[in-house]
Amino acid sequence: MNGEALIILLVEDNEDHAEMVKRNFQAQRIANRIIHCSDGEDALDYLFRRGKYTRALDNPLPNLILLDLRLPKMDGLTVLGEIKNSEHLKVIPTVVLTSSESENDICAAYRNHVNSFLVKPIDFTKFSTLMDELGMYWLGWNAKPY
Amino acid sequence: MNGEALIILLVEDNEDHAEMVKRNFQAQRIANRIIHCSDGEDALDYLFRRGKYTRALDNPLPNLILLDLRLPKMDGLTVLGEIKNSEHLKVIPTVVLTSSESENDICAAYRNHVNSFLVKPIDFTKFSTLMDELGMYWLGWNAKPY
Repeated sequence: MNGEALIILLVEDNEDHAEMVKRNFQAQRIANRIIHCSDGEDALDYLFRRGKYTRALDNPLPNLILLDLRLPKMDGLTVLGEIKNSEHLKVIPTVVLTSSESENDICAAYRNHVNSFLVKPIDFTKFSTLMDELGMYWLGWNAKPY
Repeated sequence: MNGEALIILLVEDNEDHAEMVKRNFQAQRIANRIIHCSDGEDALDYLFRRGKYTRALDNPLPNLILLDLRLPKMDGLTVLGEIKNSEHLKVIPTVVLTSSESENDICAAYRNHVNSFLVKPIDFTKFSTLMDELGMYWLGWNAKPY
């Protein structure tokens, strides 16, 4: 990335949760820029550069996708399936970040090739710690495919 | 896992690296047990319960696989492909841990649905820090499929 900010696509309909994620990432040691989509269709429009996102230069592919499961218009598992069935997009690390602890959701996400599945901690301090460690791991240690 | 130790399958032919990984995981706060295979064929025998590994009770499926790429008998990318093409095994988080920084290797691993790709730091202290954060992330935060 030649020292440019790493790009995170955050797919999250809960504005409070989105705000918490953004604030935590702003405080990280690794430079990053967050693009926020509030529903599943909008996220796929962004990734496939459809609708209002056709200009590739303005809408770079993300280095990391953080994906909620309960989303308006199109649920997170369907979005995940579209990402991981695309030869172009499947290489982007995609982490589910959800309130669901359902075993069915966890297994379905892994069967659809999610890279990792995280349950949002209810406790604010724990949520912040998770954001720090998530950022350090995926933006820092993890080798990016481009 | 009802408080039982989490199981890591370490697929690594370099004995010094394997020893470093084991020592770091022994010092972790999360209880874990490491099973070590030194080549790709042996790792697949373990996962598919073939050869000397037929007794399921003695050879539990791991919660995490750490996979080197340069391995005797069968290379890591082939092992990864077999894991991710198996309906039974594909849900197990599989992290490549290698000395290779080759873009081809990184992309090939993501195309084969690796969960994460880590380059071994040459510096010992950095290696230890990575092992700590890797353990915290995958054994702690990440939701396991079983």
